[in-house]
Amino acid sequence: MKDEKLPRKEKFSEWYNEILQMAEIVDVRYPIKGICVWYPFGFALRQRIYSILRSLLDVDHQEVMFPLLIPENEFMKEAEHIKGFEEEVYWVTKGGSKSLEMPLALRPTSETAIYPILRLWIRSHVDLPLKIYQIVNTFRCETKHTRPLIRVREITSFKEAHTAHSTWEEAELQVKDALKLYGDFFRKLAVPHVITKRPDWDKFPGSDYSMAVDTLMPDGKALQIGTVHHLGKNFSKTFDIRYEDPVGEQRYVNQTCYGISERCVAAMISVHGDDKGLVLPPEIAPTQIVIIPIAAKGKDVLGACKHALEMLKVAYRVVLDDSQERPGAKYYRWEMKGVPLRAEIGPREMEEGEVMLVRRDTFEREAVHLSKLSKAVEDKLSAIHADLYEKARQSLESRIAGCKTLDEAKVAIRKGMAKVSWCGEEGCGLRMEEATSGVVLGELAAVERGKCLICDKKTDKVVLMARSY
Amino acid sequence: MKDEKLPRKEKFSEWYNEILQMAEIVDVRYPIKGICVWYPFGFALRQRIYSILRSLLDVDHQEVMFPLLIPENEFMKEAEHIKGFEEEVYWVTKGGSKSLEMPLALRPTSETAIYPILRLWIRSHVDLPLKIYQIVNTFRCETKHTRPLIRVREITSFKEAHTAHSTWEEAELQVKDALKLYGDFFRKLAVPHVITKRPDWDKFPGSDYSMAVDTLMPDGKALQIGTVHHLGKNFSKTFDIRYEDPVGEQRYVNQTCYGISERCVAAMISVHGDDKGLVLPPEIAPTQIVIIPIAAKGKDVLGACKHALEMLKVAYRVVLDDSQERPGAKYYRWEMKGVPLRAEIGPREMEEGEVMLVRRDTFEREAVHLSKLSKAVEDKLSAIHADLYEKARQSLESRIAGCKTLDEAKVAIRKGMAKVSWCGEEGCGLRMEEATSGVVLGELAAVERGKCLICDKKTDKVVLMARSY
Repeated sequence: MKDEKLPRKEKFSEWYNEILQMAEIVDVRYPIKGICVWYPFGFALRQRIYSILRSLLDVDHQEVMFPLLIPENEFMKEAEHIKGFEEEVYWVTKGGSKSLEMPLALRPTSETAIYPILRLWIRSHVDLPLKIYQIVNTFRCETKHTRPLIRVREITSFKEAHTAHSTWEEAELQVKDALKLYGDFFRKLAVPHVITKRPDWDKFPGSDYSMAVDTLMPDGKALQIGTVHHLGKNFSKTFDIRYEDPVGEQRYVNQTCYGISERCVAAMISVHGDDKGLVLPPEIAPTQIVIIPIAAKGKDVLGACKHALEMLKVAYRVVLDDSQERPGAKYYRWEMKGVPLRAEIGPREMEEGEVMLVRRDTFEREAVHLSKLSKAVEDKLSAIHADLYEKARQSLESRIAGCKTLDEAKVAIRKGMAKVSWCGEEGCGLRMEEATSGVVLGELAAVERGKCLICDKKTDKVVLMARSY
Repeated sequence: MKDEKLPRKEKFSEWYNEILQMAEIVDVRYPIKGICVWYPFGFALRQRIYSILRSLLDVDHQEVMFPLLIPENEFMKEAEHIKGFEEEVYWVTKGGSKSLEMPLALRPTSETAIYPILRLWIRSHVDLPLKIYQIVNTFRCETKHTRPLIRVREITSFKEAHTAHSTWEEAELQVKDALKLYGDFFRKLAVPHVITKRPDWDKFPGSDYSMAVDTLMPDGKALQIGTVHHLGKNFSKTFDIRYEDPVGEQRYVNQTCYGISERCVAAMISVHGDDKGLVLPPEIAPTQIVIIPIAAKGKDVLGACKHALEMLKVAYRVVLDDSQERPGAKYYRWEMKGVPLRAEIGPREMEEGEVMLVRRDTFEREAVHLSKLSKAVEDKLSAIHADLYEKARQSLESRIAGCKTLDEAKVAIRKGMAKVSWCGEEGCGLRMEEATSGVVLGELAAVERGKCLICDKKTDKVVLMARSY
């Protein structure tokens, strides 16, 4: 880790790039633009986040693993889907010095890898619903400006779930379940978010409709952190995925798919971090508590530190930093890494049988007697999570402004989201985007009487607009 | 799962291909030859095996994740290394419809992806030793006959560790540590193995020397299931990986790397499986015990089964199969999946307050009183592991034959390994291979007086020969 100063978080773009390197999340110095290396610490963070995602999915999904390479003929089967991806697909055309008979796509997403096999796995209504997921690397040959964890060429950590159902309505219920699951997941990361239905011109290529989970980054731009797509029978017809219903008739399945990428890590870092580095929700933090001895001549504080370590390590991920550095250097380092609680023990604490607990998020200090340490730590960690979430939620809500005019919307999206009425016509939506230089994120579930900002038609529809990553 | 009969294990090749499909390990019907799909059950098995490998490595290695794509110029830097891989490398040459400025290799292994970054991570002797690993997908455009989990084009589960040290001797100690770790790992899979030093003509391209872990498959062919390479300074000079030693001088690091692929899954399946399906060591089995009610009119055996389930699930991965199938169909299914212990409860067991425990490996049956169930299960599971390992070890040892002539060696390698004396000259080694149609796996650590099979020269060296995968 470089012993340098992090840029202030106000300068978000600089802060973001630097914190990834200084906190050792990802190393951006890999010799291909838009492709990063996960440091050991970043990888540990990634693993904790994805193990939470796994535990939520494992309740009723099965984890599988499909190949990276997709033959061109399979990849090209779904016309809409292709149109959406073809300019971004990496193609393997050579093996050794020979040209391949058929080019192989690096999956940008796995519908066309998985669905030819689902065709074999699904025979009868008893095979339904089928719910699988995988966590894999996917690839996009990005032409836009890349940004670590946010817009990358190798998405190292794409969680994609795929489900098949008898009816369109059942698939719709799955869309709702998936959104609920994503809500639970992002609450564990203490990342507040909004859910909208993407407009038709921005839905997943080949879907009936797309739902999206967005959050707001500190610079006021929206970041899509999860999507859920209702695929209807579009892919099942293309890939001939049928089941025999209870009366013996062959029917096409209805499908959904939903994904989350390492953008969830980017959001978690960006929403909570501060001028001193990462601030991690306790459930995510690879180290939850760091014990730091404040040495003084003739006092064996280390013994007291070890005692506290023994007490805490039963229930928490705790580290005793007994290196030779001065305490200030240790503070700097562990603050950068976002460790939620610091436990200091100096001569005074030792004499009183106490530990000084310092919260990473507020720097609030409290001396706690050893006999009450475990309980105090438990309370503080859960308070940290609740406070992080509440603060972030308020910040998000304060940056969503109801707007009655294009001008108001244009102003609102400089620092967040604009909530506006829209008639539902694509033409009006696109004109709203043009006039504000923002995008229509999508429609809220809420119903609000109003008039379309463009055509003045009465409408119940409200959409969120924002600048977006 | 297809309700079909598994070929007998004597016909190993057929048995192997069928069991992967019937036990739902991998689906070989993916539309690219040599590339498979992990079924949910196979994936669960893979996860258990790799979490054991992770826990062994995590003691003193850090997990990281490096990119899949390697720029051609980096990939081409180490001349020896390239020669070893160039005919097997897949190349990405297009992004969308455009040709890339520089072709990108799909990693066949990650030295050339990792070492340009290690150059940045290592500055001083305090950064050493550095020990990292990753579990990733790698690619080989195989021209030989492919075989699921054994010779594949996408290796989905390549664990590769990379270490850097101050001195050649320290790196050599790491080679020994890695071999010990691999030994521990394969003992957990109850897979016996031999360790040899690969002959120079078969070492890892760019290494000083290679150590290898091999096991014997049921058809008598050797399967390489792990390798450990001493890289010396070959790569550190190419990639300019230096450290400042304690007196301020710049020195090149000494490196090792070592890998294990999904061949470990193939070996575990092949060594233990039988005519009825998988036989899994208890630590690996996704389900360790299946409880099967043997229904009879007017007897509520299900209650007793649930009681046993509650008792066992505290400490074991246990399933109660209360589906409507007849017991025989259940036996078939769970035997195919290799569940180590079956617990049957019928009217008689219920009345006696007993459970009938049936071992998957021996089909030995024993009625156990509920009060002694937990202890009995613990004992049986540990006996199953010990017996599986011992049986496999004896089988391996019985198929290693000391041979004094080429003819004896030729006969020995029809069913296993031949142990022969060799002078150490490459010419003699190659002639031994030619004369026996086998390969020299490598040199044993043991010293045995003898004469080279080819040149008759006196020697202490003994090598193992075999046919190999």
